[in-house]
Amino acid sequence: MTATTTTARDRMLSAQAAARTVGLLSDEAKRSALLAIADAIEAADGEIVAANAEDLERGRATGLSDALQDRLRLDAPRVAALADAVRDIAALPDPVGRVLDERTLTNGLTLTKVAVPFGVVGSIYEARPNVTVDIASLALRAGNAVVLRGGSAAESTNAALIRAMRGALEAQGIDPEAIQTVDEFGRDGARELMHARGVVDVLVPRGSAQLIETVVTESSVPVIETGAGVVHIVLDASASLDWARDIVVNAKTQRPSVCNAAETVLVHRDAADRLIPPVVAALQSSGVTVHGDPAVAALASGVVPATDDDWAAEYLSLDIAIAVVDDLDEALAHIRRYSTKHTESIITDDPVNAERFLAEVDSAVVMVNASTRFTDGGEFGFGAEVGISTQKLHARGPMGLAELTSTKWLARGAGQVRA
Amino acid sequence: MTATTTTARDRMLSAQAAARTVGLLSDEAKRSALLAIADAIEAADGEIVAANAEDLERGRATGLSDALQDRLRLDAPRVAALADAVRDIAALPDPVGRVLDERTLTNGLTLTKVAVPFGVVGSIYEARPNVTVDIASLALRAGNAVVLRGGSAAESTNAALIRAMRGALEAQGIDPEAIQTVDEFGRDGARELMHARGVVDVLVPRGSAQLIETVVTESSVPVIETGAGVVHIVLDASASLDWARDIVVNAKTQRPSVCNAAETVLVHRDAADRLIPPVVAALQSSGVTVHGDPAVAALASGVVPATDDDWAAEYLSLDIAIAVVDDLDEALAHIRRYSTKHTESIITDDPVNAERFLAEVDSAVVMVNASTRFTDGGEFGFGAEVGISTQKLHARGPMGLAELTSTKWLARGAGQVRA
Repeated sequence: MTATTTTARDRMLSAQAAARTVGLLSDEAKRSALLAIADAIEAADGEIVAANAEDLERGRATGLSDALQDRLRLDAPRVAALADAVRDIAALPDPVGRVLDERTLTNGLTLTKVAVPFGVVGSIYEARPNVTVDIASLALRAGNAVVLRGGSAAESTNAALIRAMRGALEAQGIDPEAIQTVDEFGRDGARELMHARGVVDVLVPRGSAQLIETVVTESSVPVIETGAGVVHIVLDASASLDWARDIVVNAKTQRPSVCNAAETVLVHRDAADRLIPPVVAALQSSGVTVHGDPAVAALASGVVPATDDDWAAEYLSLDIAIAVVDDLDEALAHIRRYSTKHTESIITDDPVNAERFLAEVDSAVVMVNASTRFTDGGEFGFGAEVGISTQKLHARGPMGLAELTSTKWLARGAGQVRA
Repeated sequence: MTATTTTARDRMLSAQAAARTVGLLSDEAKRSALLAIADAIEAADGEIVAANAEDLERGRATGLSDALQDRLRLDAPRVAALADAVRDIAALPDPVGRVLDERTLTNGLTLTKVAVPFGVVGSIYEARPNVTVDIASLALRAGNAVVLRGGSAAESTNAALIRAMRGALEAQGIDPEAIQTVDEFGRDGARELMHARGVVDVLVPRGSAQLIETVVTESSVPVIETGAGVVHIVLDASASLDWARDIVVNAKTQRPSVCNAAETVLVHRDAADRLIPPVVAALQSSGVTVHGDPAVAALASGVVPATDDDWAAEYLSLDIAIAVVDDLDEALAHIRRYSTKHTESIITDDPVNAERFLAEVDSAVVMVNASTRFTDGGEFGFGAEVGISTQKLHARGPMGLAELTSTKWLARGAGQVRA
């Protein structure tokens, strides 16, 4: 990435041109390219760590929080882990060329619907350099070019990573313009990316709810929304205590900072006496602060009174909100009001309530008697995760490589005309 | 539709509430509802034709073109045809509940990906009252509520049609709020519909390229773009004369006003002498005006010189542009530049060129030796067509009922937690 007089638009047009050749690469060629990228990242670890040190120093000078500095930090082992993630992506089956539908019309015309690359995938994200490598590798595995716009806090790190990846492509005889960045163009680059309809085929924002909201609202390129998770667990009247306790504790504490962690528990009134004391105690002994309504506070000690904000909160921390509801209808109404449509689970022994919950909850993943932490591309067996879609168009829930492809109908005829 | 003090937002929220019950209706209940709608439309034909007469009179007074008046006009036989189209939609299989993927994790958790209704489908369209009935019926067949914004030129007609449809729902015990209009709110209604993210799940614009452009650019609700067709046919060096002539004439003249009609023909230089004179003559004898480059004009009489505008034109009329290209590469470059990515076809006897065309042309439907007029939901066997998507997200090419559904993952466990 030498200093040039190109514009963000030029970069995107170069990516579009590169997408044409990358889209035609064989499975084998894409796999080799990704293995070469992994090697190149490892070989450049000194340069990458040095660039990262620049970003960290600038971050300290500009008051970047310790948590964000930690997300940003790369050392040699972390760089090696990035390279290994690329090798995992290389090992996944090629999603391009899958036959999704076949028809033969009565006139003999055959129609085949096949999976094809999108073309150019754009991504706007924040200060996590792993996303740079992750999205570029996933996009390339599915035959796409990629245009990246990372957070300015990671600009030097991202530039070093992109330089290594482009070098690897070039050495493999693949157009390096298939991996592009518009980072140098700052906010203007992001804006052009959001309005590059006809050049960029799909845009995947990754980061805070605010970033995603901005991209969804401003972009005229089609967006796949990967969203926040205000995730609910309902403890039905018939819930087993063991399952209720184990699942709530797991869903909250196993990794509190991620979108599939539980944020709110709704307890059926008929089970409140039985379940709330042990569930709250188990949470508290795992270090969780319980924010509860008066009915919860009456049944357990150390409960912080919940305010209206708690029901809408995606804590992403060792906090949880618990309320007592009169029945399943009230639980469903609460979920309709506060859920971000990511994942909800019910703990119940009642098959009628289980099926009703599955049918009526309008979320990407709806569970019975399981931890919400399973909403994850790796857990679902996709091998890699592009993100978790909380919208209903194109992809919903964990997205794998297949979701980075579009389709095309191929029609093969012998002179057919329409009557 | 009585005059009320509700707002466009209220209407959409009512549709969202109705979507919850409509989404749970059985196949049988949805079918009965559609048959009742068909009957109600026929029974109200007097009222509908009278309302249409008001629109036509206003149209004449405001200088609506004869062509648009004809599109707008309904008489009793046309109303009966609308009702029959609803019966056809009722007869289609229910797209909801299809199992699209199933997995069992090693811990025993079962995952089922099922087709579910979107929820609320919005549509913004122009002065064709048939779209009102068509979109509402298709949306309902797939378990969705619908919010309609038709052209102001058809406002009285649409109101009468919507009144009949809502009455039929009510008589069937189904929430009539599942069919909504924001027509009374004029441009503000359209604007609110485009920004109703979180309430309206998907927006399908239908109409002119300008209308679609406005909706795609302005909307923050996810849009399915149904686009214009600057459709190309390539006559390769090896093209059979019979197929070339029959397919070009069929693709241009069988119904020139629709998006899958051919607009440009690109002829390989090595076949120009052989193909251009008879193809041009056949087109001209079918009443087509041929706009050609100098090489075409040198080989046939009556050719109008083509300008740059001709290559980008979606004529939708008995006009066609013809150019001579040096080879397949030049044809592909021309298509990349001017195609709207709807449908392209190559006429060839060369299997290598055929497969190259299928692989490299980035359009929703890519054909070999067939008329582009086959790009159609009815012809593809979908039974009905929501539109033809020219975008790559969610749906590409002719959209049937399946494209009016989203998906949901159902997870059924027995206490599984994540390790």
